[in-house]
Amino acid sequence: MQIRTPYLIFLGDAHDQLAAKTGVAIAEWRRELCVGQLRLPGCQADAGLPDLTLEEAAAAGAKTFLIGTTTRGGRINEAWQQLMLRALELGLDIASGLHDRVADLPAVREAASLFHRAIHDVRTPHGPFPVGTGLRRPGKRVLTVGTDCSIGKMYTALALEREMKAAGMAATFRATGQTGILIAGSGIPLDAVVADFIAGAVETLCPANDPDHWDVIEGQATVLHPSYAGVTVGLVMGAQPDAMVMVHDPTRPTMRGLGDRPVPGIAETIEAHEACARVTNPRAKVVGISLNTSRLDEAAAMAEIARTADRFGLPTIDPARTGCGPIVSVLKGM
Amino acid sequence: MQIRTPYLIFLGDAHDQLAAKTGVAIAEWRRELCVGQLRLPGCQADAGLPDLTLEEAAAAGAKTFLIGTTTRGGRINEAWQQLMLRALELGLDIASGLHDRVADLPAVREAASLFHRAIHDVRTPHGPFPVGTGLRRPGKRVLTVGTDCSIGKMYTALALEREMKAAGMAATFRATGQTGILIAGSGIPLDAVVADFIAGAVETLCPANDPDHWDVIEGQATVLHPSYAGVTVGLVMGAQPDAMVMVHDPTRPTMRGLGDRPVPGIAETIEAHEACARVTNPRAKVVGISLNTSRLDEAAAMAEIARTADRFGLPTIDPARTGCGPIVSVLKGM
Repeated sequence: MQIRTPYLIFLGDAHDQLAAKTGVAIAEWRRELCVGQLRLPGCQADAGLPDLTLEEAAAAGAKTFLIGTTTRGGRINEAWQQLMLRALELGLDIASGLHDRVADLPAVREAASLFHRAIHDVRTPHGPFPVGTGLRRPGKRVLTVGTDCSIGKMYTALALEREMKAAGMAATFRATGQTGILIAGSGIPLDAVVADFIAGAVETLCPANDPDHWDVIEGQATVLHPSYAGVTVGLVMGAQPDAMVMVHDPTRPTMRGLGDRPVPGIAETIEAHEACARVTNPRAKVVGISLNTSRLDEAAAMAEIARTADRFGLPTIDPARTGCGPIVSVLKGM
Repeated sequence: MQIRTPYLIFLGDAHDQLAAKTGVAIAEWRRELCVGQLRLPGCQADAGLPDLTLEEAAAAGAKTFLIGTTTRGGRINEAWQQLMLRALELGLDIASGLHDRVADLPAVREAASLFHRAIHDVRTPHGPFPVGTGLRRPGKRVLTVGTDCSIGKMYTALALEREMKAAGMAATFRATGQTGILIAGSGIPLDAVVADFIAGAVETLCPANDPDHWDVIEGQATVLHPSYAGVTVGLVMGAQPDAMVMVHDPTRPTMRGLGDRPVPGIAETIEAHEACARVTNPRAKVVGISLNTSRLDEAAAMAEIARTADRFGLPTIDPARTGCGPIVSVLKGM
């Protein structure tokens, strides 16, 4: 499954930037794949792309109408249906990361069939996947891991890929969540894979490659997460990472959605991920720390980054402030 | 989902005892729930039950026609279809742990609908399940864990339940695999649950209970398994076990289906499971070792049991040889 590019990014009537975060992220990380954005009256979000009608986008070569909003509960707004039908008629595919499946709308599904167009509901895995083998395969892999969910693992992986490429390295971002999949144009929504096949799906996602090629794999959750650790463990073991980058938010006291459960410490989380990863790659190690300091001012952030580097003896970055240089240097030497 | 009892155990034309191991196990662990067995010409297996026709079983009160064979690849023999149709007509439900779903046979599905009978394909989970919360809940739980797959975790859990009940304790076997589910009459086939919901499914399986009630939970795989660790980790964290029993086969050098990968050691496996379990139950610990000595003679087995107890300082049993006494005593004191 590869989503055709370039995209027309649909921002709907998103009431703020956060409600269109998928579309905004695609424009940020894959600007070259976006011909424009389509916004409905009242839309308060802006991905910084030219505003185009469906017809203008089709004329500009758009191949996929990409739903870039995150509606509440992931529901598809039925009022968007007419737009989707027209997009299909104009020769565009449709891609969506929403919870509700576009392909479950009968009129849209029928129109896609009539016009021989594809619908990509990227929360639905394209199995079947094999059982993981645990066998070592060529190519290098770096996996972002973290102390909690929604903390910056996708952002860190994308920033690493960009800077690794800029440094002349062969690097490919590998997506494991819906936003990452829409950015990459392919990937596997790991949280929706059947339990027995998690590691096998990841082995499929980042298969054997050239010895000097790096897969930069988007992490999920944490192996210390009481709800989602099964996903993370399967991901870590399937990835067989040579290197891991630990993502942490120093301003977050408690885990998301888990009441007053404290976020585990960096040292404990490093130890847990290294123990897990070494089941399939005995040389796996955490090679750097990526701090999400978005809630700190510049001075406090830089002080926290320096303090963390010092405390753990590991290169420490905030990709949004400092770039990934020190970690890319380590990877380049591996 | 609760499968109606008593059962008629169908052994098909199983060419040996192993090919009918599901039926044999049900007769071993739940003899009181079985009215008889049905064998086709050429069947070489015997669950030790009276041989009955469908009509005799129905007259004897059988409520479910239970497919007790493990055909190659889990395929349903189409020739069995006439038997299933007649069983439904006689008022029996159908239960199966095979890979192919009975409910996917159109004629059988239609007959079940016509006669208002249930089809239990126990490899198919009855979701949706919630996301795990990690919140502590009342009741005590013991989970069997192990150094590999197919090593005796279900057997140990069933033996523990039986002896705990005999010792006057309130204990309930909780099944996580298809054979266990058919024995218990309910449970969740954990390997088929969607990744995000593994821990939540287990929280559903062994919910809050009386403070002195023990759930005796069937383990799966091992947290050190390169293919299936995601399942195990979700199970361990969802179970929040107060106690774990480590199951090991001292005669197995390499892990099943993984080439020459050695079986991890007992000490390493205990450490990994305790670290995982303490994410949701800080007091979790391995309280005993259950050895599968089926490939040793009696003297070698008893020596190995004594040596293991001495080496790890933990009560060590083989439930098939020694019973579970020393471990039941520990649990009784908790």
